[in-house]
Amino acid sequence: MATGFFWDMMAGRTPPPAAAATLGWKLREVDPETGTIEVEFAASDAFTNPAGHVQGGFLAAMLDDTMGPALAATLGPGLFAPTLDLHVQFLRPAWPGTLIGKANVVRRGKQICQLRGELTDDRGRVIATATATAMVQTGERMGRPARSPN
Amino acid sequence: MATGFFWDMMAGRTPPPAAAATLGWKLREVDPETGTIEVEFAASDAFTNPAGHVQGGFLAAMLDDTMGPALAATLGPGLFAPTLDLHVQFLRPAWPGTLIGKANVVRRGKQICQLRGELTDDRGRVIATATATAMVQTGERMGRPARSPN
Repeated sequence: MATGFFWDMMAGRTPPPAAAATLGWKLREVDPETGTIEVEFAASDAFTNPAGHVQGGFLAAMLDDTMGPALAATLGPGLFAPTLDLHVQFLRPAWPGTLIGKANVVRRGKQICQLRGELTDDRGRVIATATATAMVQTGERMGRPARSPN
Repeated sequence: MATGFFWDMMAGRTPPPAAAATLGWKLREVDPETGTIEVEFAASDAFTNPAGHVQGGFLAAMLDDTMGPALAATLGPGLFAPTLDLHVQFLRPAWPGTLIGKANVVRRGKQICQLRGELTDDRGRVIATATATAMVQTGERMGRPARSPN
């Protein structure tokens, strides 16, 4: 049985993270062997800019939530991989509706991992592409401290 | 009287964009002469990742919604400046709560503008820094087409 946060979530043993729920995240396909994933998002009217397009930052959030899970699916229990660096290129405007994220782990290092992803609309047109660097950490380093700073 | 989308919104003549409302965007200070802005965000629990931190992508959305308005404040009526390229470096984790965005227009070209921004927590610790490139366009090119692709 696959374990680790991603698989616990997929099996319903752990609730999906709030950010994923907010973005309407849904898994389509994942292959931890090749480090590839395909997910979909429900881009809501709540994400739009003055022109009525999905604000670029929300597209960045979707790309982060595509590349992150591609890597998370390869991680064992107690491991997380926060994003260190995210670079997004916006190719065309996106309207609210279904957007599809595809990503793969370009290099899976022991700690440092390099990822790339793209976001397409439901006609397959590329909306934005991205690269990211993430670092694998144990849960202890990532968890909320006993005395929260807030 | 200052006009253009940003100032119409500030004066209540135009509603704030949905993306800004979703991020809890609030203006603190803006100076269109120097192209600088300071805003705040209400990072909600709905933006968190499995570790309980604000997901990096939502921090990217906040940075986009800091740098974008720094530029928007310099634009006249009917002009918008969608982001072409966004690069974010994540320095430390952020918890839900108030986050402060500061940005400035590094170069204000006729069309191509270069921006930089940073996000700090309410103790002034830098959470993430970003750069972006945006392109000034007329509203017509940005508006929803008569036949929406969706």
